[in-house]
Amino acid sequence: MESQRRSLGDDSTISPELDRLIRQRGRDLRLRKLDQQNAVKIVNHLMDSLLEFLKNNEDQPFFREVSVLTSGSYYELVKINKPNEFDIMLKLKGPRLVLSELEEYQGLFYKIKLCKATRTEIQHFLLEDERTISATKIKAEMYRLVRKFISNHFQGEGWVIRRNLVNSPAVTLEFKAKENEDDVMSVDIVPTLEVPQGWPQAARAGPNVDKWLGKKCRRQFVSKAVYFVPKRPKGRNLKDDAKESWRISFSHIEKEMMHYHGNKKTCCETHSNRCCRKLCLRLLKCLIEGLKQQYPKELEPLCSYHGKTAFFHVLSDRVHDTLWSPGQLSVSFMKLFGYFERCALNGSLPHFFVREHNLFSPPAFPKRALLFLTNVLREQRELGLPVLKVPSPTSALVPDTDAVIQPISGTESIVASERSFRHVYVCLLVVIVCVGIGCVFQT
Amino acid sequence: MESQRRSLGDDSTISPELDRLIRQRGRDLRLRKLDQQNAVKIVNHLMDSLLEFLKNNEDQPFFREVSVLTSGSYYELVKINKPNEFDIMLKLKGPRLVLSELEEYQGLFYKIKLCKATRTEIQHFLLEDERTISATKIKAEMYRLVRKFISNHFQGEGWVIRRNLVNSPAVTLEFKAKENEDDVMSVDIVPTLEVPQGWPQAARAGPNVDKWLGKKCRRQFVSKAVYFVPKRPKGRNLKDDAKESWRISFSHIEKEMMHYHGNKKTCCETHSNRCCRKLCLRLLKCLIEGLKQQYPKELEPLCSYHGKTAFFHVLSDRVHDTLWSPGQLSVSFMKLFGYFERCALNGSLPHFFVREHNLFSPPAFPKRALLFLTNVLREQRELGLPVLKVPSPTSALVPDTDAVIQPISGTESIVASERSFRHVYVCLLVVIVCVGIGCVFQT
Repeated sequence: MESQRRSLGDDSTISPELDRLIRQRGRDLRLRKLDQQNAVKIVNHLMDSLLEFLKNNEDQPFFREVSVLTSGSYYELVKINKPNEFDIMLKLKGPRLVLSELEEYQGLFYKIKLCKATRTEIQHFLLEDERTISATKIKAEMYRLVRKFISNHFQGEGWVIRRNLVNSPAVTLEFKAKENEDDVMSVDIVPTLEVPQGWPQAARAGPNVDKWLGKKCRRQFVSKAVYFVPKRPKGRNLKDDAKESWRISFSHIEKEMMHYHGNKKTCCETHSNRCCRKLCLRLLKCLIEGLKQQYPKELEPLCSYHGKTAFFHVLSDRVHDTLWSPGQLSVSFMKLFGYFERCALNGSLPHFFVREHNLFSPPAFPKRALLFLTNVLREQRELGLPVLKVPSPTSALVPDTDAVIQPISGTESIVASERSFRHVYVCLLVVIVCVGIGCVFQT
Repeated sequence: MESQRRSLGDDSTISPELDRLIRQRGRDLRLRKLDQQNAVKIVNHLMDSLLEFLKNNEDQPFFREVSVLTSGSYYELVKINKPNEFDIMLKLKGPRLVLSELEEYQGLFYKIKLCKATRTEIQHFLLEDERTISATKIKAEMYRLVRKFISNHFQGEGWVIRRNLVNSPAVTLEFKAKENEDDVMSVDIVPTLEVPQGWPQAARAGPNVDKWLGKKCRRQFVSKAVYFVPKRPKGRNLKDDAKESWRISFSHIEKEMMHYHGNKKTCCETHSNRCCRKLCLRLLKCLIEGLKQQYPKELEPLCSYHGKTAFFHVLSDRVHDTLWSPGQLSVSFMKLFGYFERCALNGSLPHFFVREHNLFSPPAFPKRALLFLTNVLREQRELGLPVLKVPSPTSALVPDTDAVIQPISGTESIVASERSFRHVYVCLLVVIVCVGIGCVFQT
């Protein structure tokens, strides 16, 4: 066990090259965040207008009382290599609700019913029993309203609505700047139901943050509301209940954990208290995206939420802020990577809030995909994380333009890209030495 | 400066005897807290009944919508040697208010006016300008209602109302158990006005907790409401404004700082994370009470809030939890004592929230009293804190019954009490040795 642990992402395996790569990629990602400012302005304007439109809409009074749940989260990067993707949850104001867990999904999916029959506006979104709130009806109405909003208010301004996906809870808008076709931006708008009266049984214990954020903090979390988004389980031949089911969401708590991430209350508040936790998550997301880009079909079930979940598990175990000091970036990232690899190998990644639910279990994550992921992660580790070397247009140091345009699809091209990277380093070294010699001779 | 610092409560001055005394007194105080349970039950019952009475009272509708502000704080010991004193703030629901600072009191006392004229129930508590809320009228009505409540509902059950003091914001109830005349308990009921719209200028910067609880925490504090109690400044010949003025209160924030007192979020949540901060405050309060008991007239201006303020200043400077580990009790307490002594010596103890206000400045704290305090504190330090040796009836180890009954009034009796203390230790030692020898011979 111990020897396996050592080989899986222990710091003894970090070569100087790997260390350099991780730190370089970390620097790139820090710069990337700045690119987002302009996109944020455009999205803020869009959302303000949408809220205004919904508040005054004549068609559907139930959507009049919406508010943005994760306000400010615009700034959290959902995808690293596409910094202009935004996730916005729109909270719908409902009456008192009753949850019932869909058993086969271990606490992740729920049927949501009204406490009592009603003649209020929500009645248009109920199933035949006049109690159960239909996820598909809510989603369809959100889609219809957003489409109407765009055609009424943003016609010809570059925003288009994307085709509705049956497994996504979101209505997705895409923006293409006229000047630059590559300047794509997208906004996921997710209708959300609030259930204020306590977390469901499967999550009641609260997340395992006692050693990290403390017991008082866990109790605070559990005292907050919980949210549901109209997302059905993956898989075919779903039962009727499952087709109309809602997935539990803790994104408000996740956001808070990201923000108040230190064991010390003063973490990241001064230069000397900085930590590298967030950067480690961004690196892992970056790695996941890179792998998905290389193997879109094989790794289709993999998503950034798997990375985020692994990240929270590692944080709740590796609690001291000093372990995450900026100088420990490579060690910390390899710990996270090692944990993620072990989860894949063992086929077990418990949901951080609904601990009974294994995010790496079929049918959501088929065995075949898991095996593929395990192999790819091992290969990545053995080769020194070549996927992190994939350069991107906004990277500060662009080693090879060809590599940007042509997506890497196998090990060969990874090696090629690595070579071109080395080539640049050698050139740089030669230039520096020449300049140095020049200086010496001048004096 | 450094040499003065060393002599004032530096740990190099802690003799083994002093160390033992502090730790022994600390143990006593921990036990003391348990005594309070029964009193808490009685007070909870009283308060529930009072709230019920106020909600249904026909006389004064303005007092119908009250709620307990510092609920749960029943358990915080206000006075250490009288563990059965309780402080309860009753929040009155008012309309929007405007504050204006009384200049000569550096941000501590305020005139409170309504934003606009009103015909609601608060009109009975206004001055002639029909805007300013009269502190004396509110206090008088609170007194009248509490007296009526006691005579209607608790007649003959041991509760009596204490005479109204002009400088106190509280209506004080006293309870004497029939079985035991010494079993005294008292409850201070303080009517409180809430001002939700931002802290006044003098406190706007927030408390200096950046290095200790963090900037995020400070911002959270400042975003909360602020409260006012009907307390006028000390001194004679007050202006009319001052007579009707309200004193700003941060007791809700103080309570929170006491509860979330660690630099780490996990402080005091497990045995290995315990700290001695709270115990240090209790020791200082204990010392202050002891001194006030010895010199009631000379130290009349001194109160436990001076100790609490010094405590928060030390916490905001000495931030790391490890410095406050239980093993560091004596060192930590002497740091606190040293800081308090320096404040007295320099005549400067800034209010923790209203930094411009010096709690050690006249007329609230006359120069003469401050000089006396400085001398007494120096004497205490030089003699090894004899005031902490004063035994009390609930102490686990009662060294000398005479000393309990007869209040100590000078240095001589302190020395006497010290001797009797040593006497008990010697006796105990002899008994232990005898039992030990007995055991050895038996085997």
